[in-house]
Amino acid sequence: MSSSPSAPHTIGVFDSGFGGLTVLRALMARLPRARFAFLGDTARLPYGSKSRRTIARYAAESARFLVREQGAEFLVIACNTASALALDAIQDAVPVPVLGVIEPGAAAARAASKTGDVLVIATDATVRSHAYVAACQALGLRAIEKACPLLVPLVEEGWTDHPVTAQVIDIYLNELRAEAAARGFNPDALVLGCTHYPLLRTLFEQAVRPGAMVIDSAESAAQAAVQLFNGGATALAAGPAAETEVRCFATDSVDKFERLGSTFLGRPVGDVELVDLGG
Amino acid sequence: MSSSPSAPHTIGVFDSGFGGLTVLRALMARLPRARFAFLGDTARLPYGSKSRRTIARYAAESARFLVREQGAEFLVIACNTASALALDAIQDAVPVPVLGVIEPGAAAARAASKTGDVLVIATDATVRSHAYVAACQALGLRAIEKACPLLVPLVEEGWTDHPVTAQVIDIYLNELRAEAAARGFNPDALVLGCTHYPLLRTLFEQAVRPGAMVIDSAESAAQAAVQLFNGGATALAAGPAAETEVRCFATDSVDKFERLGSTFLGRPVGDVELVDLGG
Repeated sequence: MSSSPSAPHTIGVFDSGFGGLTVLRALMARLPRARFAFLGDTARLPYGSKSRRTIARYAAESARFLVREQGAEFLVIACNTASALALDAIQDAVPVPVLGVIEPGAAAARAASKTGDVLVIATDATVRSHAYVAACQALGLRAIEKACPLLVPLVEEGWTDHPVTAQVIDIYLNELRAEAAARGFNPDALVLGCTHYPLLRTLFEQAVRPGAMVIDSAESAAQAAVQLFNGGATALAAGPAAETEVRCFATDSVDKFERLGSTFLGRPVGDVELVDLGG
Repeated sequence: MSSSPSAPHTIGVFDSGFGGLTVLRALMARLPRARFAFLGDTARLPYGSKSRRTIARYAAESARFLVREQGAEFLVIACNTASALALDAIQDAVPVPVLGVIEPGAAAARAASKTGDVLVIATDATVRSHAYVAACQALGLRAIEKACPLLVPLVEEGWTDHPVTAQVIDIYLNELRAEAAARGFNPDALVLGCTHYPLLRTLFEQAVRPGAMVIDSAESAAQAAVQLFNGGATALAAGPAAETEVRCFATDSVDKFERLGSTFLGRPVGDVELVDLGG
């Protein structure tokens, strides 16, 4: 055991907006001695309604900023849409390891499901990519996906515990369960395939059937990141999370980021720095 | 009266997405012999949650495309957010007349209101700009504004006649009326300050108090454009709207534009051409 203090690893965390702060929060809890740089590409959000080509270009530019400008030695793509549609493009764009949220989410579903059938809710673009279905199939699971485009706006409106949001969740889940029944599926897990959705976790837990598990891909990705750090994780894991060094960047107005970001991060986000990626 | 056929004017119509097709629809009904080029900056939408600086840059690039590449001799900014935050930037960027939707909307409210007090609903960015309050004040009206960020996603989800949408409208309008009452206002008109909102017109008409008018800024802008054409309007107005020449452009995936655009335009949008503004 060496007693010399090793420089903390710098972990870059990227999202189209600030939903990925739920992933950062989970990472900080597990790796409090790492240094974090978070970038929200808020000038170009949301990615969830855009095409693969556009998402790949935006995500690659963002990844380059975190690696080249912020010295990130490891990237976590804390955005389901970018993970689903642009993981290859990001890996091609930067010379560091890149972890997305889809595979960890599918692995957590595999661990949770007894029936082998799971439901996945996500943005329109994530669903159209069928990345979750592919990742689940690779683990022997059957998955049915549904785009739920109203949930991100409801979270951003602050209606995280609102009767309208509960109704919208019921409508989406009833449609999803009807499709599952028609296709002969017997799902016992619901994967939250968007980093905004963990803020609705209480409503989801009320809406799923008794015994069904709610899988948070943010938590799953953080666990996977810790496993990847492996040996290094021990050193990084020591120390209180409150002192963890975090720098937050956004490509557009930092006001909304600072205002809403604290809810996602679970502590003040501090000063958010504006960056121009030229888009 | 000359019998020689004059070349039709080319009118550029711009929106961050395809909501502005409601303005194009109103323009085509009044100027069926004009040639139209419509651009939706769908790769960077929505503008409504972004900063003035970012919106101005995006809108100026879009305006240049319509004038330089499509030969537009006149621009209608069919987007309340861009009209509210970037009209000056657009006018600086192109050498042709530019009409926004805010002033026409305020003028229609002035014509409709007996009490001189009006309510305005719009996107977050439009409300933060207070462009409607300023335009109304210039006409001797008092206006109270409210951002309604859930309405655009509800329209895009296709829930234009859905009980959840009716509830959301009631919640927003009740909050707005409570503020009006607290400030001693007596509003008798509701201005729809976003080009998505005309698709919810039936729900708004059910939600306002008896006798209150619902003002559609898309209709108002089209009327203002016709007045600006003035003498030339006679020639442009002749002919059936079904034959009106329209080219539609988008900066991202044309699928969604083609799928949803027809609802906004009231006829098939035809082939939408993808353009790259480099953003």
